[in-house]
Amino acid sequence: MVDIIDKKRNGGELTKEEIQTFVDGVVSGEIPDYQTSAFLMATYFKDMTDAERSELTMAMMKSGDHLDLSSIDGVKVDKHSTGGVGDKTSIPLAPIVAALGIPVPMISGRGLGHTGGTLDKLEAIPGYQVEISEADFIKQVQNEGLAIVGATGNIAPADKKIYALRDVTDTVDSIPLIASSIMSKKIASGTDALVIDVKTGSGAFMKTLDDSRELAKALVGIGKGVGMNCMAIISDMNQPLGNAIGNALEIKESIDLLKGEAPADITDLVLTLGSYMVVMSGKTDSMAEARKMCEGTITDGSALKKFGDMVAAQGGDRSVVDHPEIMPQAKYKIPLPAKTSGVVSRVEADEMGVASMLLGGGRQKADDKLDYAVGIMMSKKVGDKVAAGDSLLTIYSDRENVDDIKELLYANIEISDSAEPLTLIHETVR
Amino acid sequence: MVDIIDKKRNGGELTKEEIQTFVDGVVSGEIPDYQTSAFLMATYFKDMTDAERSELTMAMMKSGDHLDLSSIDGVKVDKHSTGGVGDKTSIPLAPIVAALGIPVPMISGRGLGHTGGTLDKLEAIPGYQVEISEADFIKQVQNEGLAIVGATGNIAPADKKIYALRDVTDTVDSIPLIASSIMSKKIASGTDALVIDVKTGSGAFMKTLDDSRELAKALVGIGKGVGMNCMAIISDMNQPLGNAIGNALEIKESIDLLKGEAPADITDLVLTLGSYMVVMSGKTDSMAEARKMCEGTITDGSALKKFGDMVAAQGGDRSVVDHPEIMPQAKYKIPLPAKTSGVVSRVEADEMGVASMLLGGGRQKADDKLDYAVGIMMSKKVGDKVAAGDSLLTIYSDRENVDDIKELLYANIEISDSAEPLTLIHETVR
Repeated sequence: MVDIIDKKRNGGELTKEEIQTFVDGVVSGEIPDYQTSAFLMATYFKDMTDAERSELTMAMMKSGDHLDLSSIDGVKVDKHSTGGVGDKTSIPLAPIVAALGIPVPMISGRGLGHTGGTLDKLEAIPGYQVEISEADFIKQVQNEGLAIVGATGNIAPADKKIYALRDVTDTVDSIPLIASSIMSKKIASGTDALVIDVKTGSGAFMKTLDDSRELAKALVGIGKGVGMNCMAIISDMNQPLGNAIGNALEIKESIDLLKGEAPADITDLVLTLGSYMVVMSGKTDSMAEARKMCEGTITDGSALKKFGDMVAAQGGDRSVVDHPEIMPQAKYKIPLPAKTSGVVSRVEADEMGVASMLLGGGRQKADDKLDYAVGIMMSKKVGDKVAAGDSLLTIYSDRENVDDIKELLYANIEISDSAEPLTLIHETVR
Repeated sequence: MVDIIDKKRNGGELTKEEIQTFVDGVVSGEIPDYQTSAFLMATYFKDMTDAERSELTMAMMKSGDHLDLSSIDGVKVDKHSTGGVGDKTSIPLAPIVAALGIPVPMISGRGLGHTGGTLDKLEAIPGYQVEISEADFIKQVQNEGLAIVGATGNIAPADKKIYALRDVTDTVDSIPLIASSIMSKKIASGTDALVIDVKTGSGAFMKTLDDSRELAKALVGIGKGVGMNCMAIISDMNQPLGNAIGNALEIKESIDLLKGEAPADITDLVLTLGSYMVVMSGKTDSMAEARKMCEGTITDGSALKKFGDMVAAQGGDRSVVDHPEIMPQAKYKIPLPAKTSGVVSRVEADEMGVASMLLGGGRQKADDKLDYAVGIMMSKKVGDKVAAGDSLLTIYSDRENVDDIKELLYANIEISDSAEPLTLIHETVR
């Protein structure tokens, strides 16, 4: 192992066998953590070539279970997001694409940072089960055309160990390590095609467009390197996506989207991602046509029905579609009035997420229980005009006194003389 | 700790408090090895400023016992070598300097690499004790003016832990880590002044003059930073120093040196180091005069007598001075005849050391017992003319068949048409 560390430290390119030795040793415990962390730090400084990234991804993927979706007919497509505040795209996206007859087997996660993950949000629907067996997962995709579930089995245990170590050794923000971690799990999930939504901006892991582009290229490079149909878009995360932040609130906004009643930004992003998924499925090679197809599933109600089918198939109460009030409701709805007039010039996504977490909508510790009802509904976004006294947003809370939250929110929303709306979709990486 | 790793990784300068937190955490075990190794790798890439190096050195020094030599009158001087093959300089150097009334309290080490260390060599003298109490050590320096002993007590435990980790995480060859490791132990040993012999060349840890100079500057910089009178010379280690390699053989050569009968290179190096020590002691500020004083201790026999005093004080048989044959003697003395005529152009120091180790004179594993009798006596050095059939060296062995050793030696001694003698002392760093 010292030789492998040394080769990486000195900028050499590791062979497939050397990377396999590393991953095997991490999983078996034969390589002690202190050598793994030295290797990770050397990798932080010396990067990895495309070949090394692919080998690391495949070795981590093969360290655990691999889902076999070959019994599901058609080109299976999935979407992955690097994560942001208010990002509920998976929830309306899966039924839109599935309504077009394209199988969508989504394996999703829980919240790691300040806001809930896709699974947490879905659990705001009474009865919805995210932990189902592999066999039931496959059966549901065969029958209903879609499922959004948590990972079962032992997915990429090498990544689990390495990720835990990266977190405490300051080696999280290394492109080859981020990219191989994401892709090892996605490849293990057995999808044929993948659209990746790389977030960029102050509320994203990658703050600059350059860094986001580098990560997008790394992810797509690995995917292609292992023969997966794969592309990425870079979308903005300088302010929250859509208006809703919070678990039940985001489900409500997802349902609204499927009714054609959601804010323009989240709708546009979902339709864009959906169009790429449709093109990757082979149903059409025209993005314009794909977008029309996606829009059609909203206007004809087929996507909303598909969403209800999925909810019901996973044990949830499908009446949520027409009665979102069956989800937990907050006791207090408290508006946040603008202190001055002008144009909203900054809505710090990260801190909106923190506010929602502090209300109980996210986890501060891994075993915190979530309050599905609470969160924030934005009324004004960047570029919107506002008069003093207008409500900037509504705080959904189960406690009456939210002075701390108000202070945090005021500190992170800026009103100026003028401001341009933010660009939502920056570029595409293939 | 993640913040400290992050600061170093991003090239920031750590404060005294941050370095203290790191060293305290390493010693207490509160900082896990995997974080320490990530920090060490980040340090490998990002280096340390002079201030950081001094703080790290002092924090490691203070992590353990600190020898108080204030009860010994006079300016205490010591020498440290970064290590090489045939380097027995400490053994004749201490009595030469001590014979001039300068106290020499030397704390030395055992062999780490292929050849024995100073303590191993001294133990070839029947009865010689290297492990004596701190009180007896101080008393001996008070009474006899010198002592060469092993470290007692808990010297720089932070360095011990960090060194062990560096060895297995490929972070050994980092100048700030090497320099702080050496200096923390030397400062703990309580000396007032220190001459450092930094070896350079194929048989040294630092292979190039540039690297050796950088290390020398780092060592002297730390010493001065903590107020120690400190300087370094850079001396050649492309071939073995002197003719003798092996424990008893090197003691014999040391005694020869004190009689004025040793090879020119080792004699010159010892006199140079001794002269610097005399100047640092304040006895004179002229190097020429200091050298004359050192030479005088050889011609008048006072250095040899001082050596005998030290041996006797530490329980050894001082008759070794006139009867080196009381030390273990090898059963076989096997010459290595030159295969061709010409000029010796290369004698790979490292591999001569390995040959001595394979004969039993060094340790392959930490608990190997040494054979004091064995080793190699060079007859020809780089620049010497040789005729085919002339003996290049003599193998001192306790086994009759040394074909493996001969093969190794032949492969590492080169005879060419011409070769210049090597420069012994390259430069001085103050």
